[in-house]
Amino acid sequence: MQSITVALDAMGGDFGPRVTVPAVVQALSLFPELKVILTGDRNQITPLLSQLGYKPNDRLLVKHSERVISNTEKPSFALRNSEGSSMRMAIDLVADKTADACVSGGNTGALMALSRFRLKLLPGIERPALVSALPTAMNNKTWLLDLGANVSCDADTLFQFAVMGSALAEQHLGRSAKVGILNIGEEEIKGNDLVKRCAEMLSQTEKVNYIGYIEGDQLLDDVADVVVCDGFVGNVCLKTCEGVAHLFITRIRSHMTSSGIRGWIARKLFSELFNELKSLNPDQYNGASLLGLRGIVIKSHGSADVPAIINAIGEAVHEVKRQVPSRISDRLEAVLLERHY
Amino acid sequence: MQSITVALDAMGGDFGPRVTVPAVVQALSLFPELKVILTGDRNQITPLLSQLGYKPNDRLLVKHSERVISNTEKPSFALRNSEGSSMRMAIDLVADKTADACVSGGNTGALMALSRFRLKLLPGIERPALVSALPTAMNNKTWLLDLGANVSCDADTLFQFAVMGSALAEQHLGRSAKVGILNIGEEEIKGNDLVKRCAEMLSQTEKVNYIGYIEGDQLLDDVADVVVCDGFVGNVCLKTCEGVAHLFITRIRSHMTSSGIRGWIARKLFSELFNELKSLNPDQYNGASLLGLRGIVIKSHGSADVPAIINAIGEAVHEVKRQVPSRISDRLEAVLLERHY
Repeated sequence: MQSITVALDAMGGDFGPRVTVPAVVQALSLFPELKVILTGDRNQITPLLSQLGYKPNDRLLVKHSERVISNTEKPSFALRNSEGSSMRMAIDLVADKTADACVSGGNTGALMALSRFRLKLLPGIERPALVSALPTAMNNKTWLLDLGANVSCDADTLFQFAVMGSALAEQHLGRSAKVGILNIGEEEIKGNDLVKRCAEMLSQTEKVNYIGYIEGDQLLDDVADVVVCDGFVGNVCLKTCEGVAHLFITRIRSHMTSSGIRGWIARKLFSELFNELKSLNPDQYNGASLLGLRGIVIKSHGSADVPAIINAIGEAVHEVKRQVPSRISDRLEAVLLERHY
Repeated sequence: MQSITVALDAMGGDFGPRVTVPAVVQALSLFPELKVILTGDRNQITPLLSQLGYKPNDRLLVKHSERVISNTEKPSFALRNSEGSSMRMAIDLVADKTADACVSGGNTGALMALSRFRLKLLPGIERPALVSALPTAMNNKTWLLDLGANVSCDADTLFQFAVMGSALAEQHLGRSAKVGILNIGEEEIKGNDLVKRCAEMLSQTEKVNYIGYIEGDQLLDDVADVVVCDGFVGNVCLKTCEGVAHLFITRIRSHMTSSGIRGWIARKLFSELFNELKSLNPDQYNGASLLGLRGIVIKSHGSADVPAIINAIGEAVHEVKRQVPSRISDRLEAVLLERHY
């Protein structure tokens, strides 16, 4: 069994080592091929490992870092002052091939800027994209991109998102991925210039299984496996999903936890329903991939808990196994060849 | 009591007179000041009225129309060929002051184009906006605009949306409305040029109670009363809300309707919760207002049922009573005066 090394920014996210350390310990027992390099403050990490009866070994190294990039730092500032930070160290380990992938729950803008600077873009890619899988009505997934890496895009960029999203989704699905463009109507005349131009480009390639426009209310309806949009729309859309899901779950929880016989029966009978509904919250999925780089970078939710961080590590392991950056490269090359011949 | 006349496009929406006619009959008993002029095919409308034991009287007139604008017509085509259509007739009744407001569930693009052509824009308004109220976590409402009338906007347009949205919301709330801009982060550095420029403009006026950026997951959290965005983002956002709400409601319904003791208990215990959750679906609210016109135009959902159409008529009555177009005009004038002095 070939080992897979993931560099994990132990300091990233709202809870830092208090959740990253137990997550890593659990992930090591879940993924036998996994090795982890934790980057961060050794003085915080080592005691937490000891509490779990664990100490650094050949599957778990700790690389000490003094500095943490805060969530309020601008990407440009973070980039200039990143040396020695836990996030930069994790990315550097991928850049110098010591690690196969990195995971961080830290400042998203900084993570993108540093990843792009240290790992470089794949040939043919102008902008990296942030992609995540949303749970759907039929218990499948829909990959939505971009989620905020690019607040404005041109049709070429959106087209590249479709190619990258297909390549990623197909490594999970094991079949051709249906790709839609997020729009405000299904008819061809609907939408802005961006989506119309991208629709034209996608209609002309055989390398993407383009199925047309998708409206917001079809996003979770298993119509498309991959949905592309600019980062502004994607971010609003994802967060709106999370907000509505959270609202429903909160209301249901208040009934489940009510005291007396009513609450008791509710808990007995409907814990299954409740868990089913919780699994519909996109927030439960963790591990957004930064696509288009010559390396694997996974963004974990800032508020991720232990199981969520394990998911993000799992996504990193999966992408290493399936060699996602190479798949994207191959697909892009095929598209370019198609255009030339 | 002063009467309020609403012109209703009887043919608009997926179900036409089969739902508009019973809705009007019920609305007439709910709103004692209401008079309705139904525009549409008399041969369909009169028998439906008879079935309900009703016939045209001084509170309910039928104005015969031969033609219906279909949902697939482009706005430009509909505009050129609108003469004699039920939608055009309803708008004309507002233009010539026979009616105080009109309601249609027909083709949204055609409704906007015809309304703008026949009613004209208020001074200072460049683009009309479609606005609707979303139900919030604390059982309040948040008005979101634009919902698709303008697929791309400049900062001036977005600023006008904020002014119009405030004027409308305050007529419902009876207090100053908190206005937010939909963005992909709360920090000032986040977002695209459009939102940044609009934020600057809103920070400089005292005529709008601007509270800053709002993210997608805060939309239903009672943070802002009015949220502005371009029509592409707003439409995706509204439909995403509807899609997620629908998904949750469907899952819960499947448990509610299951047979046996489990289903029986579920129905007994959770009918209240279920109704509460249904009321969180934005789709339940009906009656989006087309703001910025010299007249009141309410867009009813294409799939609206009888109660939903009554809601849309109720919104029309409310806007007539509160003279919403004048309130918007006054507010715009105040903003312009503030800039000059």
